Amino acid sequence: MQNFTFYNPTQVVFGKDTISKLPRLLGTHQKILFLYGHESIKKNGLYQKVLELLGDRELVEHGGVDPNPKYEHCLVGIEKIRKENCTFILAVGGGSVIDAAKFIAAGVKLATDPWDILLGKAKINEALPLGAVLTLPATGSEMNANSVISRASSDEKLAFASSYVFPQFAILDPQITYSLSMRQLQNGLVDAFVHVLEQYATTNEQALVQDGFCETVMKTLVQVTADVKVNPPIYDARANFMWAATMGLNGLIGVGAVQDWSTHGVGHELTAFYGLDHAQSLAIVFPALARFQKERKKEKLIQLVRNVFGMKDCSDVDAAIERIESYFRDEVGVKMKLSQYGVDSLEAADRVSERFKQRGTRLGEEGSLDYKAVYEILRSC
Amino acid sequence: MQNFTFYNPTQVVFGKDTISKLPRLLGTHQKILFLYGHESIKKNGLYQKVLELLGDRELVEHGGVDPNPKYEHCLVGIEKIRKENCTFILAVGGGSVIDAAKFIAAGVKLATDPWDILLGKAKINEALPLGAVLTLPATGSEMNANSVISRASSDEKLAFASSYVFPQFAILDPQITYSLSMRQLQNGLVDAFVHVLEQYATTNEQALVQDGFCETVMKTLVQVTADVKVNPPIYDARANFMWAATMGLNGLIGVGAVQDWSTHGVGHELTAFYGLDHAQSLAIVFPALARFQKERKKEKLIQLVRNVFGMKDCSDVDAAIERIESYFRDEVGVKMKLSQYGVDSLEAADRVSERFKQRGTRLGEEGSLDYKAVYEILRSC
Repeated sequence: MQNFTFYNPTQVVFGKDTISKLPRLLGTHQKILFLYGHESIKKNGLYQKVLELLGDRELVEHGGVDPNPKYEHCLVGIEKIRKENCTFILAVGGGSVIDAAKFIAAGVKLATDPWDILLGKAKINEALPLGAVLTLPATGSEMNANSVISRASSDEKLAFASSYVFPQFAILDPQITYSLSMRQLQNGLVDAFVHVLEQYATTNEQALVQDGFCETVMKTLVQVTADVKVNPPIYDARANFMWAATMGLNGLIGVGAVQDWSTHGVGHELTAFYGLDHAQSLAIVFPALARFQKERKKEKLIQLVRNVFGMKDCSDVDAAIERIESYFRDEVGVKMKLSQYGVDSLEAADRVSERFKQRGTRLGEEGSLDYKAVYEILRSC
Repeated sequence: MQNFTFYNPTQVVFGKDTISKLPRLLGTHQKILFLYGHESIKKNGLYQKVLELLGDRELVEHGGVDPNPKYEHCLVGIEKIRKENCTFILAVGGGSVIDAAKFIAAGVKLATDPWDILLGKAKINEALPLGAVLTLPATGSEMNANSVISRASSDEKLAFASSYVFPQFAILDPQITYSLSMRQLQNGLVDAFVHVLEQYATTNEQALVQDGFCETVMKTLVQVTADVKVNPPIYDARANFMWAATMGLNGLIGVGAVQDWSTHGVGHELTAFYGLDHAQSLAIVFPALARFQKERKKEKLIQLVRNVFGMKDCSDVDAAIERIESYFRDEVGVKMKLSQYGVDSLEAADRVSERFKQRGTRLGEEGSLDYKAVYEILRSC
C-alpha cells in the first residue's frame, strides 16, 4: 500500500425528504447565490421547494448552468456574488452545477483571471462556502474537492481540485432521481463505474480494503442497473445507485492505490471537440484504452471480473475487457462507437492526439501513454 | 436503506514515516497537552521522536492513561490544561489514550462535573481541538467521535459521542505496530472484527454498498491475520490491518443500516467488573449472543460466512456462528470462555444482569434483549 492522506469534511444528509434539512444546514447565511441548470428543477418541483424552504433568506438566482459547465457562465456568477455580497453558494443540480459552484467559489476570491485556476497558475487560498442538493447520481462532485470546467471559445475542458471547495453539505434524496431521463440514468451509471475503474484498474498495490471497496461499488452498480432503469422507480435501487456513485469518487476508495485517469483525459477532449456527453465519451474510450494497455492492466482487470461479475475462472484479459464492455453496451445500454455519434474516429484521433502533442501531456499511471498512443486508442474507437 | 447523516472531518495521514508530518499538522498551536499511556512509547522511541519533532513548542505531559481509561486520571488532565492554558491535546497511543483525549477535550470546556457527559446529562457545545498518533489498530477512535471511559470507584464503563471531539488529524504509520505484543495484536483483530459485526449482523436493509464495505473489512482482517502475527513484521499486512481497523469504526460502513451494539454493551460490564481486556470480552460474548438471537440474525450471519469466509453453500446459522467463533479461537488465538479467565459464568451472569435490571437498559436492534436475556447469554459464556 502506498502512503496517502485522506480528508473529506462534507456532511452527507441522505434519504427520503432530506431536503427539509436545508434551512438548518444553511445556518446563518442570509444572502445566497442559488445556482442551477435549466428547466428540470422547475418541472420536478425542486426549485419551488427550495424557494419555500429558504423563506426570508435572500436568493440571488443564477440558473442556466450547462452540462460541461462553461467558464463564461461562471464569470457571470462571480460578478453576481461580488455585486450582491452573497456569502454562500447553493448548488442544486448534478455534477455540472456543483462543479460550477466550486469554480465560482474559488474564482470569486481571486484577483486575477479565474481561468488561471484551471491552468494551475493560481494558488487557491480560500473559497466561498458552498452546499449541494444533488439531482443526478454520477460524478461524486457532491462529496469531493474536484471540478471540471469547459471554455467554449477554445474547445477546452480542464479540471482543478482544492480542499477549499468541498461542499459543506450534500443533500442526497434518492426520490429526486425519479424525474431523470433514461439517458441521464445511463450516463450516471457509466460515469460512476468508470470513476472506480480509474482508481482500480492499474497495478496491484496489495491494498485489500481499497480493492474490496472498489469492487463493492462496481458490483452494486451492476446489481442495481436493471432496477434503476424501470418505471415506476424502485426506491432501494435508486438509493443504492446514489450512494454508490458518491462513494465512487469521494476520494476514499482509491487511497493508497495507483490511479490512472487516462479514460477521463481522452474523454474530456471528445466532449470538448464533439459535444459528446461525458459518460458517452468514457464508455467509448475505456475498452479501447484497456485493450491498448492490456498487459499492464491484466491482473486487476481479471480480478475485477472475477469479483464483480462472478467470472470466478476467468484468466483471459480479453474476456475481462469484453465483459466490462458488454456491461456498458448491453446492460446499461449506451452506444460504444464514435461512429454511432456521427464522429469519424480517424478525424478524432488526429485532432485529439494533436492537442496532446501540443500540450506535451502524457497519460497513464506511469506516464506511459504519449500522443501517439492516444492516436492509436482513438483510431479503434 | 434507512435515512442517514454522515460527517467525518478527521484528516488521516497514513503510511511509512508519516510521523514527520506532525509539526505541520499542529499548525500554530504552541502549548500542547501530550497524552500517552505507559512505557511502551518510550521503549519504541515514539516518545523521543515526538519531543524532537515538536521542537520549540511547549509540552505539558500527561502520561499514565490505562487501558479502559479512567475518569479520575482524565480529571487530572483537565486540571493541567486549565492551569497551563494548553490549546491542543496530542494523543499518542491506542484507543484508550485517544478516548481519554476526547473526554478531556470536552470536559475541560464544561463548568459541571465531566461525568455528566457520560450520564448524558451535559450537552457538549465545544471541545479543545485534538490530534492522534495511533499505535494500536483496533478501536477506530483515531477517526471517530466516540469515547468510552471507566470509573474505578464505581466499576462503571460508559460511552459518549460528539462531533466536537473528532480528532483533527490522525497519523497512522503501520511500522509503529511492529513493537506491539501478540496479545495487543490479537485484541486489535478481534475488536475491529466485532465493530463490523455490530454494524452488520442485524436485519437486511438492502444497503448494498454498506454490506459490501463491511464484508470487505472483515475479509481483509481474516486474510491478514496470519501475516499480522508473524515476526519479522510484514509491512503490507500491518498496513491492511491498520486501515481495516480504522474503516471498521469511522462511521461510514454502517450508515443507513440497523446496528446492534449488544456485544459491546455486555462486554463493557465484564471489563468493568473483572478487568477483562475489551477485545477478550467481545470474543466471549459475541458467539453466545448470536446463538441467543440466531433466528433474528440468521440471514446476515449466513451472508457473512458466504462472503467473508467463502462458505458459498452455507445455509445453516449454527455453522455460520461456529465459523466466526473458530476465527477468533483458532486463527486469532483468543480464549473464548469466561472460565479460561478465572471468571465464574454464573456469577458474571448474576452481577451483570442485575446491573441491567437496575438501569432498566435493554439491548439489541429493537431493544429485544432485557436483563433476563443478558443472564441467559452470560450463563453460556
